[in-house]
Amino acid sequence: MNSPGIHIFPLEDIPEVTPGDDLAGLILEAARGALEPNDVLVVTHKVVSKAEGRLVDLREVEPSALAVRYAEQYEKDPRHVEVVLRQSQRIVRMDRGLIIAQTLHGFTCANAGVDASNVPGEEVVCLLPEDPDRSAREIREDLRSSLGFDVAVVISDSFGRPWRSGIVNIAIGAAGIEPLVDYRGKLDASGRELKATVIAVADELASAAELVTGKTDARPVVVIRGYCYEASDRGARALVMEPERDLFR
Amino acid sequence: MNSPGIHIFPLEDIPEVTPGDDLAGLILEAARGALEPNDVLVVTHKVVSKAEGRLVDLREVEPSALAVRYAEQYEKDPRHVEVVLRQSQRIVRMDRGLIIAQTLHGFTCANAGVDASNVPGEEVVCLLPEDPDRSAREIREDLRSSLGFDVAVVISDSFGRPWRSGIVNIAIGAAGIEPLVDYRGKLDASGRELKATVIAVADELASAAELVTGKTDARPVVVIRGYCYEASDRGARALVMEPERDLFR
Repeated sequence: MNSPGIHIFPLEDIPEVTPGDDLAGLILEAARGALEPNDVLVVTHKVVSKAEGRLVDLREVEPSALAVRYAEQYEKDPRHVEVVLRQSQRIVRMDRGLIIAQTLHGFTCANAGVDASNVPGEEVVCLLPEDPDRSAREIREDLRSSLGFDVAVVISDSFGRPWRSGIVNIAIGAAGIEPLVDYRGKLDASGRELKATVIAVADELASAAELVTGKTDARPVVVIRGYCYEASDRGARALVMEPERDLFR
Repeated sequence: MNSPGIHIFPLEDIPEVTPGDDLAGLILEAARGALEPNDVLVVTHKVVSKAEGRLVDLREVEPSALAVRYAEQYEKDPRHVEVVLRQSQRIVRMDRGLIIAQTLHGFTCANAGVDASNVPGEEVVCLLPEDPDRSAREIREDLRSSLGFDVAVVISDSFGRPWRSGIVNIAIGAAGIEPLVDYRGKLDASGRELKATVIAVADELASAAELVTGKTDARPVVVIRGYCYEASDRGARALVMEPERDLFR
């Protein structure tokens, strides 16, 4: 029982974020001096996207014929479908009203990350940040400038996955933290060499943060304290598996 | 900053577990009175499997012709391949020395969960528990008998997944906790109804626990305190997606 472990807590009272807002400033205000060196801040992508103005007014979207046909079949909004198609580089599956797509960044998820929940206005949808790793780096830099010490930033979204029910939070952006911890070549407790053990810790941190986020509350920023991570600026892009190496696909 | 959040810490000094060991007893001894009502205990499946004697001595395994051919091609141990095949109800992929299989329980993972790491002896491999939900229920009952209060138990393993690099810990067994939290029909912070938002919290708890487990240390049991969960005995079996509903597959 001599390990201090890790502590995970949300920042309360982050106001509704609107395009152009200084997100790092809002985080610092909500934190009220409570941040510490090497804290990991997990930020729900929704507030990042909003601050960056990644909102699309559906009234300005002209749906393609494909979007119109698909929307008619499943009683969807054709303009919403159109936005999903525009955010996709590859359609994995298009069935029963759902679109599983590989986003322009390379992530594979439902509706290419285009989402209408927690967005103000009936006619507005929210995109993923254009470059979530860049977003994470910017937030981290801004925080460091004010704080005078380093924190890590993970930007999260909730993704479905094959074979398992339910969604989990994963990392779509990261800065200041190595997203993968490689145990290959290390020895297990029995002295045997560990094989094929590369752990996606950035995803695990995002999942851990979700446990205190809540979906219906406005708690978009979570602090994880006491987790020893390796500094790195590879970003969450390193978590996208190259198709030719992906045996699970 | 007024939310207490959650605290995650490992139990230290759990000894090497051998078949027939009283795992709940070892957990209680390591916890030294520190467990509290409604703690979630995340237990690495390896110690559960060992306590249950789910170890296979490869010297007693007669490999099939398929196992021999596949092992030759990729310089594997044909007896290990044979054990993987016997633990599988369906082979998803068999390539480059790896076998992605659906286990007898329904989980889809590498090598059907058969693993040689952290197992004593060169000729021994470890299987998943026969029924991880039953294992979780038994550990939970034993703990409750001694403690006089309820805790939840999650049994974890590390799984790869399509499209993303690295493995993450997920739940293969659960007792006393609802593994999925269903937000459908609830309202988001903007007052809009949330759709398709069912969160696999048991998987997120398993991932969170991994952050303090370490792969090379002997820390197979982690306590998560302060997480508000719903009591349920559906078990982690509820996390297996029925194939006909699985749009990601």
